[in-house]
Amino acid sequence: MDFQFPAALQELMEHLKGLPGIGKRSAERMALSIFQWDESRLAAWAENLRTLHEKVGVCSQCGNLADQTGNSLCYICDSPVRDHTILCVVEEAPQIRVIESSGEFKGLYHVLGGRIAPLEGKFAENLNILSLEKRLEENPVREIILALSPDVEGQATAVYLSNRLKNFNVRITRPARGLPAGSDLSYADAATIAIAMNARVTMNDNGEQQDS
Amino acid sequence: MDFQFPAALQELMEHLKGLPGIGKRSAERMALSIFQWDESRLAAWAENLRTLHEKVGVCSQCGNLADQTGNSLCYICDSPVRDHTILCVVEEAPQIRVIESSGEFKGLYHVLGGRIAPLEGKFAENLNILSLEKRLEENPVREIILALSPDVEGQATAVYLSNRLKNFNVRITRPARGLPAGSDLSYADAATIAIAMNARVTMNDNGEQQDS
Repeated sequence: MDFQFPAALQELMEHLKGLPGIGKRSAERMALSIFQWDESRLAAWAENLRTLHEKVGVCSQCGNLADQTGNSLCYICDSPVRDHTILCVVEEAPQIRVIESSGEFKGLYHVLGGRIAPLEGKFAENLNILSLEKRLEENPVREIILALSPDVEGQATAVYLSNRLKNFNVRITRPARGLPAGSDLSYADAATIAIAMNARVTMNDNGEQQDS
Repeated sequence: MDFQFPAALQELMEHLKGLPGIGKRSAERMALSIFQWDESRLAAWAENLRTLHEKVGVCSQCGNLADQTGNSLCYICDSPVRDHTILCVVEEAPQIRVIESSGEFKGLYHVLGGRIAPLEGKFAENLNILSLEKRLEENPVREIILALSPDVEGQATAVYLSNRLKNFNVRITRPARGLPAGSDLSYADAATIAIAMNARVTMNDNGEQQDS
């Protein structure tokens, strides 16, 4: 016989169980902790959830998450210090955060909204490719980096895009693949080793790598 | 340079970071997942949080969490099949769930609301002891189980309570202490071994334990 929580707490636990990585016990613990919060904190969170979709929108240019304010551009597209002539194409908006965390890329982004995966009913026409072509027509873009996932669907999508975009006067690149930084060679999987050996680069006299 | 999430998503992450065991990365992952929920699911959760304190109250008899409805008793105090002559005293309402999960206890509960901890400013008069005495006066209770934490403050509170309640005609007990079920002896800590050796019980011919 299980303990019966009051109905509203049960409901709260159900909501929490919908979150990634949260099981029954964690949901219970969280719900009991939330129950201790004061009224104003609960009200603030409730208002935040209620208005989330109103307040968060999508950048009208690149598809990144953006504040739904007068200006419909995200802070990256809106920035005068970014290089507006390089576009990095990603599958989903949250992947922009991952690339931004490296601090290496100073250009703009374009969110495809997925990748070509016929088994999941995702075809080229479901992706934001027309808007990408429009950006290329209207803006002086010199390079497009196809930062798609290094798996079968991601690579098929990259090949499709590079064919489709080849009539534009733009360099099409993809991120390098090879051994991840800071890891022990012993832990690398066979496929990664194969890629890294095939794409090996010459070292110069200073011991620095020379990118081909 | 960190990625800037839209303000409302940032706020959602701050709320999530207030939950036990949730750090920055988990909060991000959860917030992005919540952002995918549809409007009605967000609205339902918002309403649930907004009305949580209205809908969940405390049992007027034992202090357990209870639905805030016409009847002010929790489902345990309200149950005709429970033994109303045994009370189990716990520190906090969530501990009732732990005891209920064993299925062993069929009596009622009484939530103290903490334990005597002078360093934290918790004294006997801050606990629900008067209401416990009132229950003993008004109801035919034959046993009180003091299920307080087996640490210094918990045990001090148990001693204080057993002294204070000794004028009532009621048996005062506490849960047994010893080796936890199903664990390997090698992993038991020294204090638990000491308790278990001191409180050892005679085994009878069938190999069953004989409680003294």
